[in-house]
Amino acid sequence: MKGAGEMTTDAEKIRQAARLDQLCINTIRMLAVDAIEKACSGHPGMPMEAADIGYILWTRFLKHHPTSPLWPNRDRFVLSAGHGSMLLYALLYLTGYEVSLDDIRQFRQWGSKTPGHPEYGITPGVETTTGPLGQGFANAVGMAMAQEYLTGYFNRPGYPVVDYFIYAMVSDGDVMEGITSESASLAGHLGLGRLIYVYLDNRITIEGSTDLTFTEDVGKRFEAYGWHVEKTDGYGLGQIASALALAKEETQRPSLIIARTHLGYGSPNKQDKASAHGEPLGTEETPLVRKQFNWPETLFHVPEEALVHFRAAVEKGRQKEAEWLSLFESYADKYPDLAGEWNSFQEGNLPDGWQEALPKFESGHESIATRSASGKVIECVARKLPALLGGSADLAPSTKTYIKGLGVIKKDPCGRNIHFGIREHAMGGILNGMALSQGLVPYGATFLVFSDYMRPAIRLAALMKLRVIYVFTHDSVAVGEDGPTHQPVEHVAALRVIPNLVVLRPADANETVFAWKLALERKEGPTALILTRQNVPIIDRARFASAGGLLKGGYVLADAPQGTPEIVILATGSEVHLALAAYEKLVQQGVAVRVISMPSWEVFEAQDTSYREEVLPASVTARLAIEAGVPMGWERYVGLQGKILGIERFGASAPGGIVLEKFGFTADAVIAAVREMLEKS
Amino acid sequence: MKGAGEMTTDAEKIRQAARLDQLCINTIRMLAVDAIEKACSGHPGMPMEAADIGYILWTRFLKHHPTSPLWPNRDRFVLSAGHGSMLLYALLYLTGYEVSLDDIRQFRQWGSKTPGHPEYGITPGVETTTGPLGQGFANAVGMAMAQEYLTGYFNRPGYPVVDYFIYAMVSDGDVMEGITSESASLAGHLGLGRLIYVYLDNRITIEGSTDLTFTEDVGKRFEAYGWHVEKTDGYGLGQIASALALAKEETQRPSLIIARTHLGYGSPNKQDKASAHGEPLGTEETPLVRKQFNWPETLFHVPEEALVHFRAAVEKGRQKEAEWLSLFESYADKYPDLAGEWNSFQEGNLPDGWQEALPKFESGHESIATRSASGKVIECVARKLPALLGGSADLAPSTKTYIKGLGVIKKDPCGRNIHFGIREHAMGGILNGMALSQGLVPYGATFLVFSDYMRPAIRLAALMKLRVIYVFTHDSVAVGEDGPTHQPVEHVAALRVIPNLVVLRPADANETVFAWKLALERKEGPTALILTRQNVPIIDRARFASAGGLLKGGYVLADAPQGTPEIVILATGSEVHLALAAYEKLVQQGVAVRVISMPSWEVFEAQDTSYREEVLPASVTARLAIEAGVPMGWERYVGLQGKILGIERFGASAPGGIVLEKFGFTADAVIAAVREMLEKS
Repeated sequence: MKGAGEMTTDAEKIRQAARLDQLCINTIRMLAVDAIEKACSGHPGMPMEAADIGYILWTRFLKHHPTSPLWPNRDRFVLSAGHGSMLLYALLYLTGYEVSLDDIRQFRQWGSKTPGHPEYGITPGVETTTGPLGQGFANAVGMAMAQEYLTGYFNRPGYPVVDYFIYAMVSDGDVMEGITSESASLAGHLGLGRLIYVYLDNRITIEGSTDLTFTEDVGKRFEAYGWHVEKTDGYGLGQIASALALAKEETQRPSLIIARTHLGYGSPNKQDKASAHGEPLGTEETPLVRKQFNWPETLFHVPEEALVHFRAAVEKGRQKEAEWLSLFESYADKYPDLAGEWNSFQEGNLPDGWQEALPKFESGHESIATRSASGKVIECVARKLPALLGGSADLAPSTKTYIKGLGVIKKDPCGRNIHFGIREHAMGGILNGMALSQGLVPYGATFLVFSDYMRPAIRLAALMKLRVIYVFTHDSVAVGEDGPTHQPVEHVAALRVIPNLVVLRPADANETVFAWKLALERKEGPTALILTRQNVPIIDRARFASAGGLLKGGYVLADAPQGTPEIVILATGSEVHLALAAYEKLVQQGVAVRVISMPSWEVFEAQDTSYREEVLPASVTARLAIEAGVPMGWERYVGLQGKILGIERFGASAPGGIVLEKFGFTADAVIAAVREMLEKS
Repeated sequence: MKGAGEMTTDAEKIRQAARLDQLCINTIRMLAVDAIEKACSGHPGMPMEAADIGYILWTRFLKHHPTSPLWPNRDRFVLSAGHGSMLLYALLYLTGYEVSLDDIRQFRQWGSKTPGHPEYGITPGVETTTGPLGQGFANAVGMAMAQEYLTGYFNRPGYPVVDYFIYAMVSDGDVMEGITSESASLAGHLGLGRLIYVYLDNRITIEGSTDLTFTEDVGKRFEAYGWHVEKTDGYGLGQIASALALAKEETQRPSLIIARTHLGYGSPNKQDKASAHGEPLGTEETPLVRKQFNWPETLFHVPEEALVHFRAAVEKGRQKEAEWLSLFESYADKYPDLAGEWNSFQEGNLPDGWQEALPKFESGHESIATRSASGKVIECVARKLPALLGGSADLAPSTKTYIKGLGVIKKDPCGRNIHFGIREHAMGGILNGMALSQGLVPYGATFLVFSDYMRPAIRLAALMKLRVIYVFTHDSVAVGEDGPTHQPVEHVAALRVIPNLVVLRPADANETVFAWKLALERKEGPTALILTRQNVPIIDRARFASAGGLLKGGYVLADAPQGTPEIVILATGSEVHLALAAYEKLVQQGVAVRVISMPSWEVFEAQDTSYREEVLPASVTARLAIEAGVPMGWERYVGLQGKILGIERFGASAPGGIVLEKFGFTADAVIAAVREMLEKS
């Protein structure tokens, strides 16, 4: 038994610790308030609301090493409610990441490390770009799926080199978004036990109380998905910690901790009001908040005691990483090949000589749809590329993306195939989370027309510069009978407008091989492969230029026998064959025509001027572009004197060949257009 | 007590009725099988699976009048699983709509009334275009919301002129899609008791068993949304009928009837297999199915007895409509004004003189954001336009779309405001369902960058030619601090590629007024208004051309004082002010410059050649386009000699003015570009 003096000391210790906890928590709050006030812009409500949870999670649960933010075995933290960026920046600064108080003073300013929403690649410790609601939720599911695969692939008995959790903080907005429902359903199905979400149940949205529009039982919904659900008060530190501990213990199901929180916690006049959400508290309210938290007038005040306490994360992290490094050292001794692969993964390098696995298609044989050629490429290279994994949104038999014999993720220890279900948007967000995980190269497939369903995620892949590969098949009105709802007429153009997305529409099987090569080797952003449903001939590369020209985006496939062309035809994908058919006849008729296969505008634009001029000489103004889609943008290549054979309406239900014919996609129509242009000029 | 003879007769009657039921059901099945076989394309699995439910629903529950398919008080039927189109076409033909057996023989052929997926406007009785999964689900929610409003607006005690149910048939795919989750959550919140969905729980998707990826408890999920859930066997006609009856009785909650069904029901080798889903049964299996159902060899066989039974729908419908017409007649006597409005609604006409309510903005006063101008327009016209209703995906205070004093839908009997919640995709689908309802003109608002979230629904509005108005605010990098995730650089271009969508980016408050006018009067398709977050000056229309020029898509706003311009500047939205600022200086410097405000490409293209030539003379080749977004497509107007001041990358977080400046959007940069072009030419 302890004496009375000791008990007092214990009680005093507890009081001291509690005081320090609150000091730390309020430091987060007030840093957020000050940064947003100084920027005259931002979202104070969320950091004030979630500071307690953030504090507990980051100081007692999150395994991380602030001065080594890319340490592979760290836990991941995803702030899905990205508008609460100041919560994250405060935690990064306080725990010792390379984010200074000056950086925080530069919140939301040009070129700063602290942009309005967290941006991957800009700020050390930011694991993914968030802000568009629901995306972070799906990213974290992708990270957990990646972790499952990496665990299966790399871990060996006694060597858990992959051993981390994925934490995320999500808001009402996240939980309302469809992408979240899709991802949550899949996460529940897969039983992703390493996934722990804290849902900030603050019952306030921008338009007011959630009673206005959102009265469902979120906990019950997640239980229906197969999740483990806990509830906690958002300000009881012990309760929060128990809920997190229970979530960590539950290894068979993902966990949702529903924390009852208050937007703008501690603001005397704005707490629980929508006005706390998206604008600075203002010069009247801020002093009241300072008073509430007994905070000095000095802006960006950081109590030394709090900072010291937070910065313990550095030493703790150093130890954790050191332990792991020592584990990895013995692992590397015992499994040198695996350790080598591990390092390649981390650097995003593909194994030497992988290209030798790429197939070649001989012409003269039967025609083959580019989706089928793509399927063969995947089959051929997948075994050489352990970082490659993916699947389809329930269309694998049509998109040809299932890799036979390589198992299904989670079900098989190293399963490489993913059944995304009829969940395109989740697929997009999950692919991003996987691409953010230790060098994985994920691919996802659906019909091109449904790329619209996943567009917000594609945009983020491009913004984050992630190596994600989209396999979009059934690429034009040639889809046929399924009709206009399934015929993408505007989607190639709509994808081309996304910055940093490479869109590739190969003309035949061999261009498809090079398209995959380009996509796999492109580290700086996503690539969309646009593939046919219908068979297309394999171009005779003995007669015409090599398919390797695809790597330059556009190339002279067939030139005017006379040398200088009087007219140039540009085409992509299946329409290249129309161009070639017309070419054959036109050449016989003595027309000096050149055919350019133009699978990618973005790649072509990246070539130097002289190459582009060589392919598309300024002197030749008679130019015809052919693409079975909306013509928008082709004017860039054909100019005002040129002509575009495109489609300016929705498609129609009928056999594909008939639709193409009705829409004017015949060799005769191409020849007529060429004749007309030549007569004019 | 009845005698033995009579009992036999009763039993016999029951047997006869049961036999007839089966005959009718199998007629649906076999029509689908034969049509798909003949087309060599289609989805037999679903019609075979759902024929029993379709039969019960259409013959015992659905209130409809086949020869008067647009009768306003009919029940609505939405086939959300649109690939099962042959189920619907069979029911339409059999119950007596203007769909013949010949039409069914033309299934999936060019120009037929029976396209691959149901298309609104092509086939009488098809209430909405479906196929892209989840869209029909959301459409039906929109129809039920429309019905709530119409009930509140038109019904009077004793005169329930609006009194119908909305039935939908949905599949696993529908239920997995995020748009469905969003819409279901909102429908549950609103307690839409007139909504009855039958979920075909067949446990098969294209990639195989739903066990592969979809093991959640759907019933529990919908209960969590606040729905009434029933379960039934998909082939027990009595059970199906009771479930539907219970659903009709439940008026406070939407109902989901989970029917355990079997894909390809009755096919000896394909039932419950993915192979029954998306391709004809084939020449081997079809005869076995015939045998199974004891069906004659004749293709498209329709037993006379079955046809007669189905066709009873015509007389039943005639009576129902007659009753309603008589009700409406007394209603018109008692409430002639309301009856007049009713008729205007049906014809989609706006009340005479509504335009007088449009505001005018005086220049010389303060600047005003076009989103705020738009808010004023809505406030001014809403009271004159009872068909106008809408809201925002939880951004009303920012998008300025809440109509003060006109109540909230469902909560208030005639509420006109909708709190969609953070559910952009559902909003898109719901708007379509509303626009399909008796002349309503719905609008929906969010930030332009989030138009990506609702794109599949926008596409369908355009395809269906629906009058839907999108209010997309925060329209460029001028959004500022929120950064690249919130700055739409590619979205205007991405919307422009959608056929039949009019994209309008007004330059100032008065152009915004005309933009709303155009959108409201455009019956043949949707319109997207692209509006600024930041204030922009009100152009002095005494000095410059009238804002009414917007109605022509593009117009000469400021002309070269000398008459013939040597250079033309084209701009949209906030960039028009940059063009005008440069114009002022250039004119002083003696440059003959013309400024064209070009709010809509689509509308400009619809003008005749001479108007377009007048505005943009072919002789002037020095042309500069300014738009703070990706330049794609502007080449159409500036040609290869022209220049485009656009943005070919993602945005950045910083105050909006600074971002614009860093990206080169200054009057000085415009002047420099003009100078450079003039020197060249």
